[in-house]
Amino acid sequence: MSKNQQNPQRLLTLLSDFGDRDVYVGVMKGAIAQINPKLKVIDLTHQIPPQNIAAARFCLMDAYPYFPVGTVHVAVVDPGVGGQRRAIAVEFANGYLVGPDNGLFSGVLTHSPAIAAVELTNPNYWRTPNPSTTFHGRDIFAPVGAHLASGVSLQQLGTQINPESLVKLKIAECSQSENIITGCIQYIDHFGNLVSNIPGTYVQDKSWSVLVGDKIIPGSRTYGDVEIGDAIALVGSHGWVELAINSGNARSQLQMNLRDTIQVVIEMG
Amino acid sequence: MSKNQQNPQRLLTLLSDFGDRDVYVGVMKGAIAQINPKLKVIDLTHQIPPQNIAAARFCLMDAYPYFPVGTVHVAVVDPGVGGQRRAIAVEFANGYLVGPDNGLFSGVLTHSPAIAAVELTNPNYWRTPNPSTTFHGRDIFAPVGAHLASGVSLQQLGTQINPESLVKLKIAECSQSENIITGCIQYIDHFGNLVSNIPGTYVQDKSWSVLVGDKIIPGSRTYGDVEIGDAIALVGSHGWVELAINSGNARSQLQMNLRDTIQVVIEMG
Amino acid sequence: MSKNQQNPQRLLTLLSDFGDRDVYVGVMKGAIAQINPKLKVIDLTHQIPPQNIAAARFCLMDAYPYFPVGTVHVAVVDPGVGGQRRAIAVEFANGYLVGPDNGLFSGVLTHSPAIAAVELTNPNYWRTPNPSTTFHGRDIFAPVGAHLASGVSLQQLGTQINPESLVKLKIAECSQSENIITGCIQYIDHFGNLVSNIPGTYVQDKSWSVLVGDKIIPGSRTYGDVEIGDAIALVGSHGWVELAINSGNARSQLQMNLRDTIQVVIEMG
Repeated sequence: MSKNQQNPQRLLTLLSDFGDRDVYVGVMKGAIAQINPKLKVIDLTHQIPPQNIAAARFCLMDAYPYFPVGTVHVAVVDPGVGGQRRAIAVEFANGYLVGPDNGLFSGVLTHSPAIAAVELTNPNYWRTPNPSTTFHGRDIFAPVGAHLASGVSLQQLGTQINPESLVKLKIAECSQSENIITGCIQYIDHFGNLVSNIPGTYVQDKSWSVLVGDKIIPGSRTYGDVEIGDAIALVGSHGWVELAINSGNARSQLQMNLRDTIQVVIEMG
Repeated sequence: MSKNQQNPQRLLTLLSDFGDRDVYVGVMKGAIAQINPKLKVIDLTHQIPPQNIAAARFCLMDAYPYFPVGTVHVAVVDPGVGGQRRAIAVEFANGYLVGPDNGLFSGVLTHSPAIAAVELTNPNYWRTPNPSTTFHGRDIFAPVGAHLASGVSLQQLGTQINPESLVKLKIAECSQSENIITGCIQYIDHFGNLVSNIPGTYVQDKSWSVLVGDKIIPGSRTYGDVEIGDAIALVGSHGWVELAINSGNARSQLQMNLRDTIQVVIEMG
Repeated sequence: MSKNQQNPQRLLTLLSDFGDRDVYVGVMKGAIAQINPKLKVIDLTHQIPPQNIAAARFCLMDAYPYFPVGTVHVAVVDPGVGGQRRAIAVEFANGYLVGPDNGLFSGVLTHSPAIAAVELTNPNYWRTPNPSTTFHGRDIFAPVGAHLASGVSLQQLGTQINPESLVKLKIAECSQSENIITGCIQYIDHFGNLVSNIPGTYVQDKSWSVLVGDKIIPGSRTYGDVEIGDAIALVGSHGWVELAINSGNARSQLQMNLRDTIQVVIEMG
């Protein structure tokens, strides 16, 4: 008996670059309600910068651990829609991922590997056998997600594929040499906090600071540990080394951007 | 026995120009929950440009087919609030429409005619018999929508009116002369895609292209059919002829705006 | 028997300055669903300007009366996160308030006093006994709100504290001298409407007008009472004296800002 039949009502989350000005997101929710009006849908964000797969990858990787096991995450940042890229669904320990096979899910799957994957070739679970060539979110991904969250098994959705064959998004990795860890900014949030690709575990229980250009920013615990307006380095809520300004915007005040280099210096004890 | 009694729990959607900075939308949802906390509410969009009835008309027309039959659509773009305009509820094949009688619903009703309409004159279904003169969304439309979605019949909500008397928004129509169809841009989405008022059915199974100024843009199937950065004409997910840029923003790159003229040229076979 | 046990399923609202670009809000909803996937969550707004406690205070005060009795309002505008400020939950006549003790709730509590308050010292109701130092919304406030909305009593959440000890946000008050009331702008909404701190009850059933600089703006009933483009003073849906422009933006057209002074002149009868 599959997990699906034991737990036939799952949460569904949506993530996209559709913004909030148009009715695209509402229409995906309508398509879900046409299949199962009782499903509960949570928006992760729809403000991924247009076609920015890297930002979507980070946001999914950041969010998935905070949802109940079995949650179905539907993600649609899909510049290749209507072309050759595969439409996929993936099972992993915490739930399911549904969307285009363009690397969107490679962050999640680095932390929690795929258990099984299918290409979405079964039109019985689409909204229509003739989907739009430009809006698979409405016609394929949201309906497939709704069926999966309602108890349809992964295997029914299409042809099984090797999880190893899923597209991986190449992301800069951080490197360590003696007491210096070199990484870069992988995400900037709405407050202007600069999230690096250096895991917080590298600095845990250590004395450390961050070098950016000619500035030395002390590693600390929370925003209020420095004066208002001062820069601080900390392990953010995302679990990565992060640069922030107490009550300010680090992006504009430190004039840093995505992919800029930072260095963490560990004090030798 | 009315349809209402057979299916007493309907979905409710909200559309407005209230934006997301204030608590207006949250407060409408509170007013709905005060009437029936179990109702499921889906946001279509609250980013209609302030007082822009034409954009609201397009968004409703675009979204309604993707919702379950019986869904109640509450729409509040209401520059005439507190004045002489009527507050109405309309029954049509797919569900119900609730809002001001200012043309907001005339797009939906062109495609799926009104079955019955009432003026919302019965204060028993308002939040208060003394509604605010500036926020009928909270005090009349959301409460009436909540009652309708909970099983109250259209007729109880007020005085029956002739659907023919509903305000229609005059929209430019496209015209065909030999192999040339002349239309205009009726909507621009968040990606900068330019949606015309030329139905996709006019070009189906034909060879066609679009003339804009001195540019000829080939009619095709999906974004990836042209190089990244190139312009393309296609039948968009909305069902209209649309101009887009592969991985780009057509509004800014083609420098086009709402109401600008486009011409579709059909190749004679 | 406590109210909690009688009514074990409450609504939960969320308000924050987290914006909609990141997954912070989605993650709070995930943390809530991990505790009780059936809870219904309504967003008040997440577009409070970063760290602006005064705007959050106004929005909560404005919204709470429109929700069912027993609703749990979780509010996270929290510049002091990880520092010395207390995390609190408060019971008042209409429901519960959960968030940082920084004055956020002092608007609500001026209108509807606290019945009881606790400091959130019981980690059994947090997401983890080791909460992030920067995201108590996810790790403390949303989980505590979810437990409270699921039937846990206020007293279980931590140490009882004196409601008198809660931080109050000092807000400019309006003053009356003969027939002139002097106040200021306390909130500006998305339409550019200017909401003063002068209660609508002061002008009810009177002839009145507003003085701003050298302009006299007539007190009236609704936007349409003046020509399109003209300024109007009215009692807005918030219940305060408000300045608006019929079909326009009062903030930009009157060039006024938060805390600017306005004077209401009552005509002596």
